[in-house]
Amino acid sequence: MPATPFSCLYLIHQPRFNSYFNPLFRSLTYQLSTSPLSFNGIKFTAARVHSSLSPAAETESPSGGGGGGRSGGLSPGPVVAGEVQRIDVNPPKGTRDFPPEEMRLRNWLFNNFKEVSRLYGFEEVDFPVLENEALFTRKAGEEIKDQLYCFEDRGNRRVALRPELTPSLARLVIQKGKSVPLPLKWFTVGQCWRYERMTRGRRREHYQWNMDIIGVPGVMAEAELISSIVTLFKRIGIKESDVGFKISSRKVLQEVLKCYSIPESLFGKVCVIIDKIEKIPVDEVKKELMAAGVSQEAVQQLLQVLSVKSLTELEEKLGSGGEAISDLKQLFSLAEKFGYSEWIQFDASVVRGLAYYTGIVFEGFDREGKLRAICGGGRYDRLFSTFGADDIPACGFGFGDAVVVELLREKGLLPDLSLQLDYIVCALDEDLQGPAAMVARVLREKGQSVDLVLESKPLKWVFKRAARNNAQRLVLVGSSEWQRGVVGVKILATGEQYEVKLDELM
Amino acid sequence: MPATPFSCLYLIHQPRFNSYFNPLFRSLTYQLSTSPLSFNGIKFTAARVHSSLSPAAETESPSGGGGGGRSGGLSPGPVVAGEVQRIDVNPPKGTRDFPPEEMRLRNWLFNNFKEVSRLYGFEEVDFPVLENEALFTRKAGEEIKDQLYCFEDRGNRRVALRPELTPSLARLVIQKGKSVPLPLKWFTVGQCWRYERMTRGRRREHYQWNMDIIGVPGVMAEAELISSIVTLFKRIGIKESDVGFKISSRKVLQEVLKCYSIPESLFGKVCVIIDKIEKIPVDEVKKELMAAGVSQEAVQQLLQVLSVKSLTELEEKLGSGGEAISDLKQLFSLAEKFGYSEWIQFDASVVRGLAYYTGIVFEGFDREGKLRAICGGGRYDRLFSTFGADDIPACGFGFGDAVVVELLREKGLLPDLSLQLDYIVCALDEDLQGPAAMVARVLREKGQSVDLVLESKPLKWVFKRAARNNAQRLVLVGSSEWQRGVVGVKILATGEQYEVKLDELM
Repeated sequence: MPATPFSCLYLIHQPRFNSYFNPLFRSLTYQLSTSPLSFNGIKFTAARVHSSLSPAAETESPSGGGGGGRSGGLSPGPVVAGEVQRIDVNPPKGTRDFPPEEMRLRNWLFNNFKEVSRLYGFEEVDFPVLENEALFTRKAGEEIKDQLYCFEDRGNRRVALRPELTPSLARLVIQKGKSVPLPLKWFTVGQCWRYERMTRGRRREHYQWNMDIIGVPGVMAEAELISSIVTLFKRIGIKESDVGFKISSRKVLQEVLKCYSIPESLFGKVCVIIDKIEKIPVDEVKKELMAAGVSQEAVQQLLQVLSVKSLTELEEKLGSGGEAISDLKQLFSLAEKFGYSEWIQFDASVVRGLAYYTGIVFEGFDREGKLRAICGGGRYDRLFSTFGADDIPACGFGFGDAVVVELLREKGLLPDLSLQLDYIVCALDEDLQGPAAMVARVLREKGQSVDLVLESKPLKWVFKRAARNNAQRLVLVGSSEWQRGVVGVKILATGEQYEVKLDELM
Repeated sequence: MPATPFSCLYLIHQPRFNSYFNPLFRSLTYQLSTSPLSFNGIKFTAARVHSSLSPAAETESPSGGGGGGRSGGLSPGPVVAGEVQRIDVNPPKGTRDFPPEEMRLRNWLFNNFKEVSRLYGFEEVDFPVLENEALFTRKAGEEIKDQLYCFEDRGNRRVALRPELTPSLARLVIQKGKSVPLPLKWFTVGQCWRYERMTRGRRREHYQWNMDIIGVPGVMAEAELISSIVTLFKRIGIKESDVGFKISSRKVLQEVLKCYSIPESLFGKVCVIIDKIEKIPVDEVKKELMAAGVSQEAVQQLLQVLSVKSLTELEEKLGSGGEAISDLKQLFSLAEKFGYSEWIQFDASVVRGLAYYTGIVFEGFDREGKLRAICGGGRYDRLFSTFGADDIPACGFGFGDAVVVELLREKGLLPDLSLQLDYIVCALDEDLQGPAAMVARVLREKGQSVDLVLESKPLKWVFKRAARNNAQRLVLVGSSEWQRGVVGVKILATGEQYEVKLDELM
């Protein structure tokens, strides 16, 4: 009997390992082998079995210092351990690390952003995360301005971490000028920074997916943008029963303001104030509006219009001749053709907090009302002139990575994303590491992902790692097989095992 | 004859358009049509043809303001154009925009980074671009410390844009502690910032691909890392005649310093000084070393060892018993099995500029000697203790996105990456935009990328856009076809055209 007390111990006390080990073990009793303690080159030495049972096996000590006949040698390292205070292991407040499991989720989400953008024929662009501060310091009283991560660089320039992507996009469009033919359909997935109070689903940095259409004046553009967001939702499993879009137009407010002869220079500021209506008491909003120069009568009228929830009612209030009504009607009509009528509803209270919107505005919301807006956007036909360039009709949206993940979690829709490997390759002796490297190289050249075991490790450890990393196959490089020009392969799901020549691996 | 003077003009004066247009035009003379001026729903109206010839067609004015019976209406926009100074349209000095063509190149490069990492079984991670400053302020006199983009945030925390990725990685490893089984094989592609003098291939921000192996003490780890870089080079068309790796070990210096009883706390600092040897005069380096407490004799010895270019010669100098020699020999032996012997050479002058390296160090260089190091890395077994944690053997490399692109450009290896679209879809009448949206929706649901024309545009314009965006097929939605439940499809490369039912589009 080839079984040693050590391997018996395994079979009894390590059920998980057992299931992998069993077929190998069983074939051990039937098949040959020159040494009674080896099969397929696997040597069951006491030392190995012992170290695999020891918890220390996974946290080996570094090789430097005293080893290799060099005891007393100078050990490198700028600081002697023990004198050093442990650093703060957390990232700065409001920011995130992305360990592998979080990174897989982020990649999954971003790949969906990118795939939807591709389906809609949009081209990807990006801008520096650090911009000149002047790009963001609009004077309309937006919250965003007070939340800038801004500083002076070593060249005494005022710079800021971007709080949003649209100003950079506009800057690049102006820079490109007539060299780029309109319309532009551009998308970005980029990190944005706001120094703000942290709440659920909101940190001080988040990634934002933006899609923008530059050069199209009609609402087909907005209809297309909303369609792309709906496509994204559908792809990630979110239904119209989970999420809706509230849609309005800033032209609604504009028409009211026009009746009361409010100067157009106030428009952005008024919108920014009105947008606070769900965050601060109505009386505060009224006060701010009046302080900005809006008459009490106009304030009353504005607030009344904001409560309107149907286009018919809005038409009664504003008359049917205006652009607000005709834009909105056209958008709702196009939504039918795009196939997302059930996702959208008119809601005059949607204004959005950025000063630069001029027409249709929209935001995606969870129907349970638990979360902040998932995304938002609209038309910004006058942004370019605020940068001193000619205006170009434009619209776009921002879609953050934080709230949608909260929603997916709420709905149990987070995907199961685990590491998937094709192969784990392991040398059965330290002096077979070179051959194992050759095996890994051959497989990688054929496009297979390979976790090459870089140390001499007990088989138990290897199987455990293979299971954790969802490796499909294990290749064991043993000396007798290597001499015959073959390696042992094991399909880990079935336990099936076979020998294969190096040049036939695939 | 259905041809109008306008379309004749096309055929004569617009050869590029002509080649697309001709088949459509010819079939016009054979096939039916209720109106003599329409085929497949295309109406050749004078207004259309005229606008397609006008350069204004691509830069339409915004729809807001005076149009739609609303002349004199309040035009939105916070600032009146004309009063506003044009913003600086360039990104901050030393930073980059990524317009579509640059973004395609970046994505191509990053996808290669990611694919190689996948082949090697590495998992992707990321960390905040903004970190606590303390993470980077080592006291070894590194250049990197003086180049920090650092500032105080609104909560009075000292923060910095990361100049490199390794400290964040170490922080995350310490944070995860025993919850992650070793070895970790992690990679990152992230942006890093250094405020420095700008030279060719170096800006103030760049992206860096890092691969790190945490928990493996032996040089199999370094061998695997170099192998992954070689795989990357091969994938992007760079050969061993273009690029090589200089390889050494910090243990070489360590062994020299040991002979002269230099305290180990000086080791990092000494390495940082020595690394400047190709940037500042040798006498300066000597002075700095002596100021740091290294004797003149030791300095002489160090500089002599640095000039060694072969392992045999090194062995003569240091003797064969040390770790430096045995590590290097093993690495060169493994390189044969990994298949990259021709890429690497021993060169004692390679030290690298970061204080934390302790063992093997390497850098990739262009053999023509025109560019800065393309990539570099090494073993850093003592970094964790400088953060107050237990040391873990570790090694890794950084590979920037800037120098390699310079090299690809030098060698004429930049890939030809243009936008590729499956379809361009266009309504032939304004009131067919809804149906065109339906067509786009059906195609996108089948995974096709579709550039939906969002405005009423002349055919010439549509063909030009299709050509620019490399669209494979053009779908024209015309009213008579739509009534029959079909649309016209044209394969743009061949001119072949056919009709297809909406539900049979694919």
